[in-house]
Amino acid sequence: MSKLPAVLSRLDADLDASLARLSSWLEIPSISTDSAYWPDSRRAAEWLRADLESLGFKASLGETPGQPVVLAHRPKPGAPHVLFYGHYDVQPVDPLNLWDTEPFKPVVKEIAPGRKVIVARGACDDKGQVMTFVEAMRATIAETGDLPVGVTILVEGEEESGSVNLPAFVRENAEALKADIALVCDTGMWDRDTPAITASLRGMVYQEVTIKCADRDLHSGLFGGAAANPVHVLSRIIASLHDETGRITVPGFYEGVEEPSNSQKADWADLGLTEEEFLGQIGLKHSIGEKGRMLIEQIQSRPTCDVNGIWGGYTGEGTKTVIAAKASAKVSFRLVGKQDPDKIAAAFQAYVRAQLPDDISAEFIVYSASPAIAVPADSPALTKARAALTEEWGRKAVTIGSGGSVPVVGDFKRLLGMDTLLVGFGLDDDRVHSPNEKYDLSSFHKGQRSWARILQALGS
Amino acid sequence: MSKLPAVLSRLDADLDASLARLSSWLEIPSISTDSAYWPDSRRAAEWLRADLESLGFKASLGETPGQPVVLAHRPKPGAPHVLFYGHYDVQPVDPLNLWDTEPFKPVVKEIAPGRKVIVARGACDDKGQVMTFVEAMRATIAETGDLPVGVTILVEGEEESGSVNLPAFVRENAEALKADIALVCDTGMWDRDTPAITASLRGMVYQEVTIKCADRDLHSGLFGGAAANPVHVLSRIIASLHDETGRITVPGFYEGVEEPSNSQKADWADLGLTEEEFLGQIGLKHSIGEKGRMLIEQIQSRPTCDVNGIWGGYTGEGTKTVIAAKASAKVSFRLVGKQDPDKIAAAFQAYVRAQLPDDISAEFIVYSASPAIAVPADSPALTKARAALTEEWGRKAVTIGSGGSVPVVGDFKRLLGMDTLLVGFGLDDDRVHSPNEKYDLSSFHKGQRSWARILQALGS
Repeated sequence: MSKLPAVLSRLDADLDASLARLSSWLEIPSISTDSAYWPDSRRAAEWLRADLESLGFKASLGETPGQPVVLAHRPKPGAPHVLFYGHYDVQPVDPLNLWDTEPFKPVVKEIAPGRKVIVARGACDDKGQVMTFVEAMRATIAETGDLPVGVTILVEGEEESGSVNLPAFVRENAEALKADIALVCDTGMWDRDTPAITASLRGMVYQEVTIKCADRDLHSGLFGGAAANPVHVLSRIIASLHDETGRITVPGFYEGVEEPSNSQKADWADLGLTEEEFLGQIGLKHSIGEKGRMLIEQIQSRPTCDVNGIWGGYTGEGTKTVIAAKASAKVSFRLVGKQDPDKIAAAFQAYVRAQLPDDISAEFIVYSASPAIAVPADSPALTKARAALTEEWGRKAVTIGSGGSVPVVGDFKRLLGMDTLLVGFGLDDDRVHSPNEKYDLSSFHKGQRSWARILQALGS
Repeated sequence: MSKLPAVLSRLDADLDASLARLSSWLEIPSISTDSAYWPDSRRAAEWLRADLESLGFKASLGETPGQPVVLAHRPKPGAPHVLFYGHYDVQPVDPLNLWDTEPFKPVVKEIAPGRKVIVARGACDDKGQVMTFVEAMRATIAETGDLPVGVTILVEGEEESGSVNLPAFVRENAEALKADIALVCDTGMWDRDTPAITASLRGMVYQEVTIKCADRDLHSGLFGGAAANPVHVLSRIIASLHDETGRITVPGFYEGVEEPSNSQKADWADLGLTEEEFLGQIGLKHSIGEKGRMLIEQIQSRPTCDVNGIWGGYTGEGTKTVIAAKASAKVSFRLVGKQDPDKIAAAFQAYVRAQLPDDISAEFIVYSASPAIAVPADSPALTKARAALTEEWGRKAVTIGSGGSVPVVGDFKRLLGMDTLLVGFGLDDDRVHSPNEKYDLSSFHKGQRSWARILQALGS
């Protein structure tokens, strides 16, 4: 008979110990976008490698031009084989002053009666989520001496900086990474009670643009009124990116964007997501999204454009009467359907340059350009996973689209011909990428139990 | 017979020694906008106080809530009395990486055959200019044992941060500061060969605006497409500040702006300033100023608006897919004629708020609000100064307007009922407020000689 009940009981009994293990990993500030933290990134990779080795994995650090990849194997001849993907790097922590506790000193807090969370950078994204899978394996091995399926682990350290080196790594290690299906734990639930499987992901084009005017900073009293100001030029460009209906104005941007089916619209309507519940939680009232679209459509299945950062001129204390020589912005587009990321990156650059007179120039850095992904909604693996999640949470698991992007899913399909199953336990209020990031203990604990059930189901 | 020739010869012979004195003052990083440098500000004030004492002045540091004011007296009963104003504080030095040499290690360079300059933050603005007057006094006293006029010196340490404490100081010390006329050396020449007296100054309204949207930073993958982005909101506001003709759109902004007389227009036309010579020197070709206005009018006698700094979201290395909770900009207006600075500060705030929905807020800091100033173009002092400058430079001194603002001139008029004579030797390419600020040795040397002549003329 199934040993699953014993495995689940062990996970219940082992929660505090699993929290302690997660905390020790969270204490390592593995910020991949900042070179100052690269030695810590390597420590975080080594931490996971050693833990997987203790579970009987053959585990190593795969070197890349950037941060190392944790690669581990636990084959099971004759059984199905899965590839689990996650990332050990985390977002920067600024603005630091908005954190109530140290970002790399994890603490467990009760934020509502009976609702406990662990607070730290990476608590959810993605260390906490990765450990739900690792703990499920740990308990299963402890109770059964084995895993129901063969497992390969691929945990990278550059997801938060665009996974720039991952495609090459996947290509070079295609044989070692081959599996029947990929599992990814980097997505969210529908709400605190309703588990979700993510079946579609938006793509991403992320660029930095720098507008250059005069060849030096200028005194606004001497040159103001005549000299072009790059902050004004950049602001006009940003202001022009959306029209009054919320549509993005870059020519050709909507090529390859499909309209949703009526049944899809009906499903969305059933979920009944309101501005009040979705935006109210972050102190806003009104969606600025495309007019005539459902809120859930705006955030899940429509392409978007956001300026993620802007800077230019004097930004210090007090005043400086300067006209800057240049101004910069980080501009990202979320893509859907068949939008071509390279075409859109080029279209944005052409769009900007078309607005500049011959004495003003623009320079660009393309950080990432990945297409949107759709995951087959009817594979046996997905059916088994949905049943397992429904069993664990006592609530029908829903299939949703994600506003975010997980570029590796496209790499797996393109380079390994492999589909991906996206199951995650994050919540909208987890503050990923923000101060006071947290992960609900219910997500961490029931996430472990969910994976134990899914592993069991995939092996049967 | 006049001892002026002897004074001028002494200034010629003493140039290297006067450069050494200036350099030792320039080495003190008296950045008033950054509290980290306040101890240095006090050292810079003490340096000048001691130097003036060595010239027989009764010199002291006048305390204010901010940086101290250097106050010094050398009365001459029966003779005219002048009040000299300057400032010992300097602009911040960022971006530091664009300096070819250390900003506070002054060096003398030959930038063209026979054209030498001293490079350092403050070389021109305003330490170099202040020292032209001090050296003129030093040589005059050395040769004649006295000065032709009574002199009071007022050199403040907060000009670059809006002179916030100066009006109160002037009011409280009105008796000590009373004089027949004020002299200010903080302006420029028409060109390297043509001396200028500045007869009108633009006013200034300098504010910081912060746009606040969500109550925390957001993940653009979760909230993009629905959540308001403060960088977009701020960019739309900045983009809307000028219309397609270059006019500023804040309601009521042009109230109190007079049109130039035909004779003024004729004078401007005579100067024949071209975009090529004015903007070419900074790598630009086209003025972005108001259509249908002469370039010299755009930069000297029309009100302007410039964003001096902007920041929001992630501005570090690499990428972060964040929608910021807030974004900020430093916005300054240059005022002319009878424009009311307080009205315009309020009009800008109302203009911004009118563009915000009820779930987005704006906060403001008003750093300065000073009116434009016109100096009588026909006073005896101005006539004597013009003759002295023409004599020294062998080129007719021109009377010009300044795009910049020297708020203290308004304070002198309002609080002491005293007119001001603005004579300075800065050049358009001095890079004041920019990396590699410099002061031509010809400005420094002939500036000293010019003041010696003006002092003589004012005393006769």
